[in-house]
Amino acid sequence: MNTIETIMKRRSIRSFTDQPISDEDIRTILKAGMAGPTCVNARDWAFIVITDKELLEKTADANGRPAQCLKQAAMGILVCGDMERAFSRAKDYSVVDTSIACENMILAAHELGIGSVWLGTWPQMDRVERQKELFQLPETIVPHSLIAFGYPSDPSELESGKPDRPEFEEDRVHYNHW
Amino acid sequence: MNTIETIMKRRSIRSFTDQPISDEDIRTILKAGMAGPTCVNARDWAFIVITDKELLEKTADANGRPAQCLKQAAMGILVCGDMERAFSRAKDYSVVDTSIACENMILAAHELGIGSVWLGTWPQMDRVERQKELFQLPETIVPHSLIAFGYPSDPSELESGKPDRPEFEEDRVHYNHW
Repeated sequence: MNTIETIMKRRSIRSFTDQPISDEDIRTILKAGMAGPTCVNARDWAFIVITDKELLEKTADANGRPAQCLKQAAMGILVCGDMERAFSRAKDYSVVDTSIACENMILAAHELGIGSVWLGTWPQMDRVERQKELFQLPETIVPHSLIAFGYPSDPSELESGKPDRPEFEEDRVHYNHW
Repeated sequence: MNTIETIMKRRSIRSFTDQPISDEDIRTILKAGMAGPTCVNARDWAFIVITDKELLEKTADANGRPAQCLKQAAMGILVCGDMERAFSRAKDYSVVDTSIACENMILAAHELGIGSVWLGTWPQMDRVERQKELFQLPETIVPHSLIAFGYPSDPSELESGKPDRPEFEEDRVHYNHW
């Protein structure tokens, strides 16, 4: 599928089959995450790949009610910012860099026939703290986003696009002045 | 080009020809930006499309030295967060949502043969304030990122991928525990 088609068709998938994701596909998804631009090429992210069933449940609970669908997913990836690597003069660029990595991963997954849903963590600091505690993370590693991945129960969702969303909102765009 | 190939080949392009970008392609790029997920479907972004030559120069200067390449670009897009639309309980999700929009736009541009470079604005607040002043933005509109777009002086850069970057960094990945 070409890139623009994937971008336009991607939607959140919250119901998954039991099919596991192959190691090769996991690696492709991670490579896509690492291929995004980062501020001053800091590559200031870290990825925790979760496939253990019990741990998926704990990770879902640490992220709050909207993350419950992770319990049925084949895989979760907790994407974190690495403050030791982040641009020293403006470390919050790490939030941008990890967001880019996440978007690349969900687009790559879609291409592989794998659905996903992005479960927000940062800036909800109660979630950030619970994930830090669950994974016993070093002080410099900040949980940013949790993504659930799996083969969709209804594969047509990968083709149907986003329901009830305008493709283009004219009033969001300004030309050469506000 | 398929999605994963685009993600892997995209690199920053900083030297552009004089060729303008068609209105149709500008619209496709903006649609790609609007197709990303946003927290609680807030769609909390705004896009300022800059094609006026004099304004490109002013916008480049407002964003500091690394943004000088914008002066030769066919188009800049200043992507902003809209605090009136952002998720009321955690408005900083707007930083994530606008980052997603930016990544989708640079991937879509690559697919169209258009190069780009992402010029960071937020969290460098001096840049944020200068852009707010230049465009006389409302208090609720926060400049987030500036992207320069154009046809590359060296089209082979769209095919060559990123120079000197590892595709996969083993030590960035953790499996089921830190």
